[in-house]
Amino acid sequence: MNMVNHRFDTADTSSFRSGMSRLGSAVNVVTTSSADKRYGFTASAVCSVSDTPPTLLVCINRAISCFHAFERAGHFCVNTLKPHQEDIANVFGGRTPVEDRFGFGDWSEGLTGAPVLSNASVSFECEITNAVDEATHRILFGRVIDIRESEEEATLFYCMRRYIRV
Amino acid sequence: MNMVNHRFDTADTSSFRSGMSRLGSAVNVVTTSSADKRYGFTASAVCSVSDTPPTLLVCINRAISCFHAFERAGHFCVNTLKPHQEDIANVFGGRTPVEDRFGFGDWSEGLTGAPVLSNASVSFECEITNAVDEATHRILFGRVIDIRESEEEATLFYCMRRYIRV
Repeated sequence: MNMVNHRFDTADTSSFRSGMSRLGSAVNVVTTSSADKRYGFTASAVCSVSDTPPTLLVCINRAISCFHAFERAGHFCVNTLKPHQEDIANVFGGRTPVEDRFGFGDWSEGLTGAPVLSNASVSFECEITNAVDEATHRILFGRVIDIRESEEEATLFYCMRRYIRV
Repeated sequence: MNMVNHRFDTADTSSFRSGMSRLGSAVNVVTTSSADKRYGFTASAVCSVSDTPPTLLVCINRAISCFHAFERAGHFCVNTLKPHQEDIANVFGGRTPVEDRFGFGDWSEGLTGAPVLSNASVSFECEITNAVDEATHRILFGRVIDIRESEEEATLFYCMRRYIRV
């Protein structure tokens, strides 16, 4: 891989945020459990990596309070929200203390102990197979061990700074 | 990081594909140029990594024909499509020979030489800063050097195996 010598100036942060708001994504709550405590945060940066074996990735800011729980746990669950779960997205993306967040939504325990949202659009429970730091974030690679789909086909998106119900 | 010993069976590929169809994403054409040739493929696996500095990632299957061009080039451009650009998505995601693909859409040349789609919802031109292999794919990390947004706020999504115009 030819790693070029940064020949160009980097784009500015506000242009990047504006551009990224166009790209949009599904709204996910990524959870874990460690030492009998539950942790979770709202994440847009989730994507498929491979289906052989089924693998996805999640980007997590190394500065958020629950980062170390994910580091310890070795597993996580991606819960993709459905329309009308905006309240859950807001709680897990806001200033609510982390254990209080699970008062919103109906949560059960997955195979690994990670919290699984009962009526998510889809949930992917994963074991961490690899982790890479890039800039402020850590990219967690998860091998998918359990998938639960809602009967209703509907997903909550966030794009152009608003929720979109698909 | 506690890399657990794979205690659980891996989910099967068809369940994973079905689950991932719920998560959905914007539709992007990721391009590069190498030795005066243009390359590009349709990608859903693009996500934001950090805004400090502005960084995104793209997952590319190491088996696709244009993989080595990305490996050589050291730069790429993510072009996020708009509604009514489904034809471009289909051509860059199908069996059309790679140079013929650029007959669809109006393409110019970015700062690095990477093809930029003139009327994309947004395009992010990047220099590759890091690359990691995971399963069948390579994850390319790009530091964003140029961003172009369309005046019209509209993005093409693919979710639940159909195009969705947002």
